[in-house]
Amino acid sequence: MKHKRQNRLVFVPLGGSNEIGMNLNLYGFGPKGREKWIMVDFGVTFGNAETPGVEVIYPDPTFIEERKADLLAIILTHAHEDHMGAVAPLWSRLKAPVYATPFTAYLVRDRLKEAGILGEVELHEIGLSSRFSLGPFDLELVTLTHSIPEPNGLVIRTDIGTILHTGDWKIDPEPLVGKPTDAKTLLQLGDEGVLAMVCDSTNVFTIGMAGSEAGVRKNLIELVGKQTGRVAIASFASNVARMQSAVEAAEANGRTVCLVGRSMHRMMGAARHIGLFANAKAFIDEEDAASLPKSNVLYLCTGSQGEPRAALSRIAEGSHRHVKFSSGDTVLFSSRVIPGNEKSIFALQNALAGQGVNIITEKDHHIHVSGHPCRDELRQMYAWARPKIAIPVHGERRHLIEHGKLARKLQVPHGFVPKNGDMTELSETGAELVDEVYAARLFRDGNIIAPEGAGAMRERKYLSFGGMLLLTFAVDKRTRLSAEPVARLFGLPDPYDNDFDQVLDELEGLARSTWMKLSSTQKQDLDAAETEVFRKIKRHTRTIWGKTPHIEIVILGSE
Amino acid sequence: MKHKRQNRLVFVPLGGSNEIGMNLNLYGFGPKGREKWIMVDFGVTFGNAETPGVEVIYPDPTFIEERKADLLAIILTHAHEDHMGAVAPLWSRLKAPVYATPFTAYLVRDRLKEAGILGEVELHEIGLSSRFSLGPFDLELVTLTHSIPEPNGLVIRTDIGTILHTGDWKIDPEPLVGKPTDAKTLLQLGDEGVLAMVCDSTNVFTIGMAGSEAGVRKNLIELVGKQTGRVAIASFASNVARMQSAVEAAEANGRTVCLVGRSMHRMMGAARHIGLFANAKAFIDEEDAASLPKSNVLYLCTGSQGEPRAALSRIAEGSHRHVKFSSGDTVLFSSRVIPGNEKSIFALQNALAGQGVNIITEKDHHIHVSGHPCRDELRQMYAWARPKIAIPVHGERRHLIEHGKLARKLQVPHGFVPKNGDMTELSETGAELVDEVYAARLFRDGNIIAPEGAGAMRERKYLSFGGMLLLTFAVDKRTRLSAEPVARLFGLPDPYDNDFDQVLDELEGLARSTWMKLSSTQKQDLDAAETEVFRKIKRHTRTIWGKTPHIEIVILGSE
Repeated sequence: MKHKRQNRLVFVPLGGSNEIGMNLNLYGFGPKGREKWIMVDFGVTFGNAETPGVEVIYPDPTFIEERKADLLAIILTHAHEDHMGAVAPLWSRLKAPVYATPFTAYLVRDRLKEAGILGEVELHEIGLSSRFSLGPFDLELVTLTHSIPEPNGLVIRTDIGTILHTGDWKIDPEPLVGKPTDAKTLLQLGDEGVLAMVCDSTNVFTIGMAGSEAGVRKNLIELVGKQTGRVAIASFASNVARMQSAVEAAEANGRTVCLVGRSMHRMMGAARHIGLFANAKAFIDEEDAASLPKSNVLYLCTGSQGEPRAALSRIAEGSHRHVKFSSGDTVLFSSRVIPGNEKSIFALQNALAGQGVNIITEKDHHIHVSGHPCRDELRQMYAWARPKIAIPVHGERRHLIEHGKLARKLQVPHGFVPKNGDMTELSETGAELVDEVYAARLFRDGNIIAPEGAGAMRERKYLSFGGMLLLTFAVDKRTRLSAEPVARLFGLPDPYDNDFDQVLDELEGLARSTWMKLSSTQKQDLDAAETEVFRKIKRHTRTIWGKTPHIEIVILGSE
Repeated sequence: MKHKRQNRLVFVPLGGSNEIGMNLNLYGFGPKGREKWIMVDFGVTFGNAETPGVEVIYPDPTFIEERKADLLAIILTHAHEDHMGAVAPLWSRLKAPVYATPFTAYLVRDRLKEAGILGEVELHEIGLSSRFSLGPFDLELVTLTHSIPEPNGLVIRTDIGTILHTGDWKIDPEPLVGKPTDAKTLLQLGDEGVLAMVCDSTNVFTIGMAGSEAGVRKNLIELVGKQTGRVAIASFASNVARMQSAVEAAEANGRTVCLVGRSMHRMMGAARHIGLFANAKAFIDEEDAASLPKSNVLYLCTGSQGEPRAALSRIAEGSHRHVKFSSGDTVLFSSRVIPGNEKSIFALQNALAGQGVNIITEKDHHIHVSGHPCRDELRQMYAWARPKIAIPVHGERRHLIEHGKLARKLQVPHGFVPKNGDMTELSETGAELVDEVYAARLFRDGNIIAPEGAGAMRERKYLSFGGMLLLTFAVDKRTRLSAEPVARLFGLPDPYDNDFDQVLDELEGLARSTWMKLSSTQKQDLDAAETEVFRKIKRHTRTIWGKTPHIEIVILGSE
């Protein structure tokens, strides 16, 4: 006698629930072990001083790769790197159709083209507020507001219940680009009944509201009007409303806009694709801008985080080919300080200040607003959606936990604060942790994508703290030294201040004498001999440097 | 006919004028080239993720070391590490007498003892507000307020004019420990005439006032009163007023204080040395504290910056031997986020939040105030002292430049914004840059103290980005391979996912074939042969990894 297995509805974040960035959320529906899946977002995060040599970090998609036959779609809420940056590099491991609205689709297409796989990917460009079905999932986009065009919440209706996956959002009554938050749909959705809301936690520690782009625009226009020298506005390229504000600030003050930085041009392309900037005056290129009077140009730059290779850093160092700033010119940082970037941003500002350039930041004037919901906005969203279960995502542990507490205060009856890899079953009785699946970070290291724990980074960090000592010599078949020891040092200071002659002599002499003192039995086993030489050398490095570098001993045996 | 050479008065910062930290200020008086010198402060700064393996950084004292016969004294304004931390490790290079007030002297003595040189150092313990002469300098301490006991401004009177060197300060009407700012003396000094003021720039970007310790105390007492679980207050150990507030918060709420962390105990020793905590109830040690009811203990901890080895990080990880925190307990961060420490602080808070511990920071409640002057305090100090010359120090470039602008706005007629190493002559006609002397940073790397630029750090950073590839083989006198190539890799990911077997084989094979293909002339010159092998291997690493590690080729020649 066969029983029909019962369907279940599960949620699994593989990224974004231990960190801000690297979002990868999975929803599964079906009998246990035979679920159909949709993936919401597939983003990256960026390396920092803690991950030298690794600029980009991906969520490891292994769990869903093993179920890729049942993966119905990758649906992208919006075009920020932390929501879509992993599609081009990792799509080949999943090969699922991709769904995105026009602005996002334009940028994804661009990336797929660069990766040489555009022809292979089934990319569906879907309309804002569209509704469509995939297997057991009835899907609907809800227009929200954020710091990029076309931010969508995703409503996922199933036989078990409805999920509102917010993606990134804020409540901006005047977003300038796109429509305001679709409060009507959210309220209707609440009336209809929301089982679970999976929601952005980034700004849960910030009271009040994030503020509107409209206020920023007003201030940018006013501030640019007060400048007499060259002006640069540094902002995140994806913030198209900000870009538009910069254009208006230029036009209102008799300045021509010059875009600086590749991603500004890329985003401008995407913006024009959705019909923006149709009436903007022509921009000017960097070379022509240099010949305009100082007070007639406005540069719109990336590089607000002090990225060393970005245009703004080169301008600050005076090494930019065309854009030269000097005393009396002004840089407006219409951007925030991303935690971890303080040192590089301040280095950039020190370099600008050293050239006499005025610096205006969001600390001085209201020229930036966050794209994420502060506490009052979260309250409002919970009041609209009234979910039975609150699932905070998009945050570090402290953010998710605080968001969970807030949801309880807002009388949401159930909640679950997930870690990456937690599989939660969602039902009327609440959220239950039913499994912990493999979730990890993948480091892009040169052109190799390898699991974070694979050891390369740990070894490199060790090298960066201690440096390295190499010692090699060769012995013949009768275990006589056939080539004298050679020592080399990397990343260690010279203890005797004489070009390392003395310390290399010491180390080579110690290796030689250690070998000589070994018994003939010991000499037969080169591995054991290496260990013995290693021990002696290690002890000596402690005496010399007070710390131990990575020590590599290679005894070459003769043929 | 001999002319008496004219005296001059010069100021030279060797540290603290490109950064916050590592203060070393020199004042010289006398005929050019025959000046007598005093040094004001001799501090350190701390390494970070940018300087792996280097925890402490010193200002290079070479310039004054070369003039040490004319160095009359090292005068310490206060006991913060960035003002006195270099005395113990570098005093032997200068051997000048050290002057400090009792609290500072106690801590310096402690360090000199640890360094084993207490007996050698002429250490003068001087009184607050004392006045004494050294050669051409008539010196007077002025009591200010800051975030440590006994912060002193230094008045330096000479025949050419009077300098007010502020050291670190704020204006706290209720500092709780020590007297309020000696406004009367500052005002009298202004009446008497101040040629130059050399002044703290740390908070020049912050409007208003830094705020008082008294407000913090009130809030700490109130917040501790609301907690029912264990409570820890994390603060900077040197902030003795804060420590006292924590003690009062404990006593007011029926809790016994337990100090956690070595520097808390050290600072408590210094505080008792100047008569503080005489009436405080007995503290309890970590082991005994563990047996008290949760609501009867208050831990006072260091480690607010997320330092991995500090007690608080161990508590957060659950690995502290005696102090265990769990759900419902609370950590109050009565401290600020030092720029550059964001990542480690947030990691600490994530770990605490993950254990269910409540976190309260200065963002939530007013439980920290800065020790440095904000803009309104700077205005007040300029109004008191009315210097002819403003010399901003104690800041990054952007702080110093902004402080210079502020001083001009405050109608100070002359100013100079120095870089480390700038020698400025001070006179009634203003400040004139007369020389640029050697100024640099010294890295403490293990137990070697070497100039920043010596290369070790650059090499280590290279290793941390790229890893390393070592390839060695031996050849006999007739240039035949006598030992087959051995390749080893460090900090590189495995490109083929098979324990490096394949990639090592490839590299060893390539080295072998490259050697074999060399002409016999090429083989005679091992250096040239190494270069050829290097070239081939380098090209291959690019293909494999898409980046180039540090490559070291060693061809051992036979005896």
